[in-house]
Amino acid sequence: MVIDSFNSKELETLIEDLSEYGGADGKGITRLLFDNSWIAAQNWLRGKFSEKGLQTYYDVSGNLYGRLEGNQIDSIILTGSHIDTVVSGGKLDGQYGIIAGMMALEYLKTKYGTPKKTLEVVSMAEEEGSRFPFTFWGSKNIVGTVSEEEMSEIHDANGISFKEALKKAGFDFKKKSDEKNIEAFIELHVEQGGVLEIEKKSIGVVHHIVGQNRYIVTVSGEANHAGTTPMGYRRDSLNGAARMICEIMDKAREFGDPLVATAGKLELVPNTSNVVPGKATFTLDIRHIDKNIMGKYIDEIMAMMKRISKEMNLELEVEKYMDGEPVQMDKNLVEVIRNQCEEKGMNFRMMHSGAGHDAQVMALKVPTALIFVPSHKGISHNPEEYTELSDLVEGVKILIETLYKLAY
Amino acid sequence: MVIDSFNSKELETLIEDLSEYGGADGKGITRLLFDNSWIAAQNWLRGKFSEKGLQTYYDVSGNLYGRLEGNQIDSIILTGSHIDTVVSGGKLDGQYGIIAGMMALEYLKTKYGTPKKTLEVVSMAEEEGSRFPFTFWGSKNIVGTVSEEEMSEIHDANGISFKEALKKAGFDFKKKSDEKNIEAFIELHVEQGGVLEIEKKSIGVVHHIVGQNRYIVTVSGEANHAGTTPMGYRRDSLNGAARMICEIMDKAREFGDPLVATAGKLELVPNTSNVVPGKATFTLDIRHIDKNIMGKYIDEIMAMMKRISKEMNLELEVEKYMDGEPVQMDKNLVEVIRNQCEEKGMNFRMMHSGAGHDAQVMALKVPTALIFVPSHKGISHNPEEYTELSDLVEGVKILIETLYKLAY
Repeated sequence: MVIDSFNSKELETLIEDLSEYGGADGKGITRLLFDNSWIAAQNWLRGKFSEKGLQTYYDVSGNLYGRLEGNQIDSIILTGSHIDTVVSGGKLDGQYGIIAGMMALEYLKTKYGTPKKTLEVVSMAEEEGSRFPFTFWGSKNIVGTVSEEEMSEIHDANGISFKEALKKAGFDFKKKSDEKNIEAFIELHVEQGGVLEIEKKSIGVVHHIVGQNRYIVTVSGEANHAGTTPMGYRRDSLNGAARMICEIMDKAREFGDPLVATAGKLELVPNTSNVVPGKATFTLDIRHIDKNIMGKYIDEIMAMMKRISKEMNLELEVEKYMDGEPVQMDKNLVEVIRNQCEEKGMNFRMMHSGAGHDAQVMALKVPTALIFVPSHKGISHNPEEYTELSDLVEGVKILIETLYKLAY
Repeated sequence: MVIDSFNSKELETLIEDLSEYGGADGKGITRLLFDNSWIAAQNWLRGKFSEKGLQTYYDVSGNLYGRLEGNQIDSIILTGSHIDTVVSGGKLDGQYGIIAGMMALEYLKTKYGTPKKTLEVVSMAEEEGSRFPFTFWGSKNIVGTVSEEEMSEIHDANGISFKEALKKAGFDFKKKSDEKNIEAFIELHVEQGGVLEIEKKSIGVVHHIVGQNRYIVTVSGEANHAGTTPMGYRRDSLNGAARMICEIMDKAREFGDPLVATAGKLELVPNTSNVVPGKATFTLDIRHIDKNIMGKYIDEIMAMMKRISKEMNLELEVEKYMDGEPVQMDKNLVEVIRNQCEEKGMNFRMMHSGAGHDAQVMALKVPTALIFVPSHKGISHNPEEYTELSDLVEGVKILIETLYKLAY
């Protein structure tokens, strides 16, 4: 197959048009689950799906589908991504994968007619956790159910309960009987990192999504006067935390890619220029695609932090608040995509995802793959999020090739 | 001379009574320059000075004096400290030195009658800079003048100008012609550090007050996604700042006492757990009694910070916002006090002051000495500030001995 006459201009226009929903104030897009912008965006998409000749329907949870019915095999090849955004988000995170899916299905229908297997594009209701303190509402409901009980204590910043917002938007909790037969899920997304751009690649074929462990580390010493406390009498929590952070980073570099460790947030008490810091609290975000290597790294830095605390007469408290395991993408699907990239001479690389995506939830039940296009300077969750149109087009093309291979 | 019949109970009572002014809410003492508590405290003291048989008067700046006129030599031996407090301060910082001075003069007058030289106790108007962004109003006006022009832009948090507050309290800017002939100034103060307590000493005889240099150090890198940015592509400002802080502290310990270096305040941007910190800003407070050694230390750490910034591809900006030179106490006065301590078998040590005091301003024009009593756990600028009564009494006793030696 050779992709000709793909309408790049339309891809650009569709992204711009969809960005109007929640993006009217010029400060990026804010489109939160079940809010007015969200409803308008989903309804606009439903109209577009129809225009493109797809059957449209919502599932009970609020995920919107465009369907191209197959005529030989009773299973679904699904593509898509999420329609919600972070507060003041960009024009690509999530919605690019939906627009791309819709255009891919239109292209295939126009050029090759009815597929053997059913093709569907999904605009998933929610991934970011921006309105309610709950993530992946869309994908979690596709591969399973989320119980009313689990959501009963969840409210948004205005005190509106999840249930109230769900019902008001016309949706409900899913029942087991609503399961559907999905054979594969392919998500196309912006990288949200700088690797593809730095290495001048247009496509990233993802083999793993990292596991993430997050901790809050509290180092306690004693707040003392900066002038009257000799160095030898100090229990300086920041000095301790600084030594730990240096060793955490040195060891992460020593372990090598794809291990990453980040101390992103640090706060001191009392945080005054003329007082030795009595307490230093920092977060630790550790990611790797291999649970065992990540575990070994964590064991080593925990031992190191205990050693430093003891040496410096400081107290150490470590609280784990996230423990997400790495997720492997489906080997066969990854192979199909890689082969397509090679056959079509695409400028690609194999890579892992350092960020979380709907694909990691879908992969728990459905053979899943994830494809990246570059993010300029790695910027995402920001109105500055940008990808060259030519790369966005490459993304749609590899999606078309892959869906063709799977469904025709 | 042997001090007998000193009324410890009265010392305790006087401190408690004076603490009522500004301390009525149970959250420590807040007595700010020219506020109602300040006026009430000064007037209460004026009454006490009179009761003790001292002549009383205010100078034009708001400093209150109690005077015991000498009969042979026309010069003044001055003692005292400041009457103002920080917000929610303790019962000793400042006012202990005033009460002690008053009791010392009363003791000397009662036991030895009229001195050869005039003895004065001063309740200085202001030292802390708690109401207006200006420190040492009291002592600066004793040894010189503070011009109206210099104070013209200074306002308190409620927008009241310094001049307005000054005039409303009944005071004014000093004129050159108001100078008086002070032969020596002796300040008695709590240590505000933990050295005397740790070393179980009752008295500290201060030979130097440290110089202080303060800086704001800004380390800039790039804010990046904690998951999608490999370690090798990061410009992590916190990792850079942490390395600098470790080396700053190591080098301070290497230089040894009395050098102290403190990074008391640190702030990150954006300060989010899943973002590599793009900017880290920290304060640096460096103190030593020797300007040259302090300069050498600063040169070395500046070079080190530049080296680390270069190695880690970070930008470095260092802004100096305080440059205070060390101040030496008068050698003869220090010798008099040390001799008195030795002769009377007092439990003392020679030491420097790591904090600033009125004595450092007075020393610019007048032979000056500073005497410390212990601070429990080094706590000060806090309602928990505390010194054993027996140590407070030792402080008054060495002050009596010293004033006797100088004035009789």
